[in-house]
Amino acid sequence: MTDSLRVAALEVDIHLGDVDGNLARIRAAIERGAAAGARLIVLPELATSGYVFRDVAEATDASLTRDDPRLDALRETLPGGAVAVFGYLERGADGLYNSAIVLGRDGELGHYRKSHLWDRESEIFQLGDAAGAVVDTPVGRVGVAICYDNEFPEVPRGLALAGADVLALPVNWPFVPHPEGERAPETIMAMGSARASRLPTVIADRIGAGAGAERGVEWTGGTAVIDGDGWVAAEPLDGMAVAELEIQPGDKRLNDRNDLFGDRRTALYRPH
Amino acid sequence: MTDSLRVAALEVDIHLGDVDGNLARIRAAIERGAAAGARLIVLPELATSGYVFRDVAEATDASLTRDDPRLDALRETLPGGAVAVFGYLERGADGLYNSAIVLGRDGELGHYRKSHLWDRESEIFQLGDAAGAVVDTPVGRVGVAICYDNEFPEVPRGLALAGADVLALPVNWPFVPHPEGERAPETIMAMGSARASRLPTVIADRIGAGAGAERGVEWTGGTAVIDGDGWVAAEPLDGMAVAELEIQPGDKRLNDRNDLFGDRRTALYRPH
Repeated sequence: MTDSLRVAALEVDIHLGDVDGNLARIRAAIERGAAAGARLIVLPELATSGYVFRDVAEATDASLTRDDPRLDALRETLPGGAVAVFGYLERGADGLYNSAIVLGRDGELGHYRKSHLWDRESEIFQLGDAAGAVVDTPVGRVGVAICYDNEFPEVPRGLALAGADVLALPVNWPFVPHPEGERAPETIMAMGSARASRLPTVIADRIGAGAGAERGVEWTGGTAVIDGDGWVAAEPLDGMAVAELEIQPGDKRLNDRNDLFGDRRTALYRPH
Repeated sequence: MTDSLRVAALEVDIHLGDVDGNLARIRAAIERGAAAGARLIVLPELATSGYVFRDVAEATDASLTRDDPRLDALRETLPGGAVAVFGYLERGADGLYNSAIVLGRDGELGHYRKSHLWDRESEIFQLGDAAGAVVDTPVGRVGVAICYDNEFPEVPRGLALAGADVLALPVNWPFVPHPEGERAPETIMAMGSARASRLPTVIADRIGAGAGAERGVEWTGGTAVIDGDGWVAAEPLDGMAVAELEIQPGDKRLNDRNDLFGDRRTALYRPH
């Protein structure tokens, strides 16, 4: 059975440390995605806080606890049956986490703490204890991973095998030089991992270069919707990428003889 | 320590069923790669036989045993210290295999039987019992996989974790429609898997469309050298792609804080 799922990935103009301002901008972005008819709305990593903190103390000032009523209040912006996924800077009992929340009209549906930390993140954040999450939602089983997580093939593969129908991927991709005419390397990896598991992937990234950079870090601007065949189905128009995805829960058939998961030779694979 | 390795991937004008003619063309291709200074020379899948067989009987007529002196004789074309990898149709004790041989000046260095079979291949070939191979050679540790094998993220990842410095990938990629301006999907997947494990990948594919098709199957023409960052370092010029690859045995550092293998959270990954 093929379902159709309208999704939106939105850039958000995030200001470092301005939590209430960012929450207002997140609210506006969710409203915009909902108005476009999207039932799955994805926003960037650390959308409440920004990214380039000097140290734990400064990051702590921009953190929120998971039960902060300001996070919960964002559900008011969601139509019934719609789901939003966004990153936030979580203040946990034992330290800070780079986390994502999966929000429905009636409250939190799922939660994930990033488990592969990039560069200076390891000076700020604790490591999460799961390699992504699969969350049951009104729009299906939504996989969640954050940024660098997805560069480990084990993560999108594991989420697809665990039954994710679609992957929500909040990111902050710092710009890295790449050959002219090529897509950003993280995009190519996401196209490959999407196709490898027929796992549509909804990516929301930062934007900004030059004066728009955050303490000198420029962003790739990789917001995109990638379909289950690995193709870029939508890129941002005025900050929002919207696409209608075909979702085939659990169906990985490629032709009469091949099934992407059935063809796996699990007994032959090297243990992780 | 960074080593430099000159590699060549060559298209070969393979004729269905014409084993001796194909062996002569393989010989010429290896000689051409060697003359270009390549120390690792990769040719397509099933280079001795062609691909689109009607049935086992017809494929058997184009098969070779692993110890066929005509295969061994090809080593005469290799300069000392150089290595060739090519696909052949193997007649084993218990049936036919879609195999690859790794050949050095002094004889066979390694051998691999394809373990993920595409479409009608399952009517012709037996399944191999390894997910790729890693072969110690004079040019380093060469990973070997064949075509559809590489679309399973477990394969290139497993070979890199097992110590492969470079992946030799003989393929026969049938053309599949894809969006204008995009590379073939198999190429994108190979770029992604190369970057995910910093595993340079040397791809040798068929060519031919229209009258050059084999019983109606047209080929993508995906011959390419992909470097360890996942970029296409060389595409064919007159049938041969040559590049100088940087090889960093075992070194997966990305920056002062990140190591692509060290950052893996093996305890968190879903078992295969």
